Amino acid sequence: MPRPLILVSNDDGITSQGIRTLVEIMTQLGEVVVVAPDSPQSGQGHAITVDHLLRLRRSDIFGDVVAYECSGTPSDCVKLAKHHVLKDRTPDLVVSGINHGANSSISVLYSGTMSAAIEAAIEGLPAVGFSLGDFGRTPDFSHTTEYILQIAKNVLENGIPKGTALNVNFPAKSKAPLRGVKICRQGDGYWKEHFDVRKDPHGRNYFWLDGGFVNRDLGEDSDLWALENNYVSIVPCQYDLTAYGVIEQLQNWNL
Amino acid sequence: MPRPLILVSNDDGITSQGIRTLVEIMTQLGEVVVVAPDSPQSGQGHAITVDHLLRLRRSDIFGDVVAYECSGTPSDCVKLAKHHVLKDRTPDLVVSGINHGANSSISVLYSGTMSAAIEAAIEGLPAVGFSLGDFGRTPDFSHTTEYILQIAKNVLENGIPKGTALNVNFPAKSKAPLRGVKICRQGDGYWKEHFDVRKDPHGRNYFWLDGGFVNRDLGEDSDLWALENNYVSIVPCQYDLTAYGVIEQLQNWNL
Repeated sequence: MPRPLILVSNDDGITSQGIRTLVEIMTQLGEVVVVAPDSPQSGQGHAITVDHLLRLRRSDIFGDVVAYECSGTPSDCVKLAKHHVLKDRTPDLVVSGINHGANSSISVLYSGTMSAAIEAAIEGLPAVGFSLGDFGRTPDFSHTTEYILQIAKNVLENGIPKGTALNVNFPAKSKAPLRGVKICRQGDGYWKEHFDVRKDPHGRNYFWLDGGFVNRDLGEDSDLWALENNYVSIVPCQYDLTAYGVIEQLQNWNL
Repeated sequence: MPRPLILVSNDDGITSQGIRTLVEIMTQLGEVVVVAPDSPQSGQGHAITVDHLLRLRRSDIFGDVVAYECSGTPSDCVKLAKHHVLKDRTPDLVVSGINHGANSSISVLYSGTMSAAIEAAIEGLPAVGFSLGDFGRTPDFSHTTEYILQIAKNVLENGIPKGTALNVNFPAKSKAPLRGVKICRQGDGYWKEHFDVRKDPHGRNYFWLDGGFVNRDLGEDSDLWALENNYVSIVPCQYDLTAYGVIEQLQNWNL
């Protein structure tokens, strides 16, 4: 069997520690090609670049591994990889991350890491986003590697159900070893926003978005519960946003 | 009963024709406050601004209607409106649009118009995004107004089921009158991408994202079918991305 072709991207940028770790793991499994943003793209959600040009430059940051840095968003990276860099070759697996910071619960919507994975899923490719719940400057990824390897092997073997991508989150490293993997639903939480209002040297207001995460989920089947209890969480995410359960109710409206 | 409070945003920017039309309609129903981007934000998906400061300026573009233009994304606009501009007042309705161009099928993921509505839904507010399938320079919105009024009245009366926002799309105006409203699911389609590769004056490559939409949906219950058959489509969209039907299958993996 030929070695599988694995596309790697992320949203923290091509120089981040998380993508270095992910590339190291993936080279154990197959031929790796990297197309990642040339600067941090956190919070970019599913943004694509339509009003500006895109740049793509070869990078030697990963030694022998073919890599490109792109001026666009994570979604742009996946599109450029599929339709320009790889052209007629189809990746057997697309992985994104490892994100510096959790992408559990509602954060999946804002996440550039997961938008790269979901973009790949839209293109019909098996895709996984990996994130670590550690926002520190030098996060420790060492406890994630054997799980990432195992999850990637499973995807290469089983594929991923059509129309979905996997959102994998790890708790920050603690003294206790990880307790295993839980397949979860997206937890019910939100960011309670606060805007920090400041004055610039010219006396004009400007704002910084700030906020704290609120967990309002009492269930034990959510990604939030899994992470709080030192499990790896895997949520299968779909890009069909239809709320099917609501269609009938709306059909009774006076329209 | 006091007049309802209606927040209006969009992604084409505060000077676009679509938001002018929407503001005009909403002033018939209640007190309107506008917080919209100061420049076009098409394709911004659910991006938020975390690495840059935000500006918010009062605008008199809508005369007596209180309006602000914001340097951020549509999601930023809704967050700033809720937590800074309106503070202790809670909108009875949040509307976004009218977008210049359709946001049916997979385009809902890339849509700034819908991200404003979904952001409002996450905040627990009833929200609707409106889009017109006309990419021309001077689209005709006249056939949309009575439907928008009726949909907004229904939302003010009935609310919207928790965890969802409505994605409303109109076909471009044609000689035939609209045939009514269909409650739909998100159609199965995708953008077949193409990158236009050009050389700058310094001999370096740059790229433009380009592509054509491919409809691979044969059903008659999708938004794509409705729009092709001159109906107004309404898709209820949820921000819980969990693919529940897949959880059990993944639990059989070797993890």
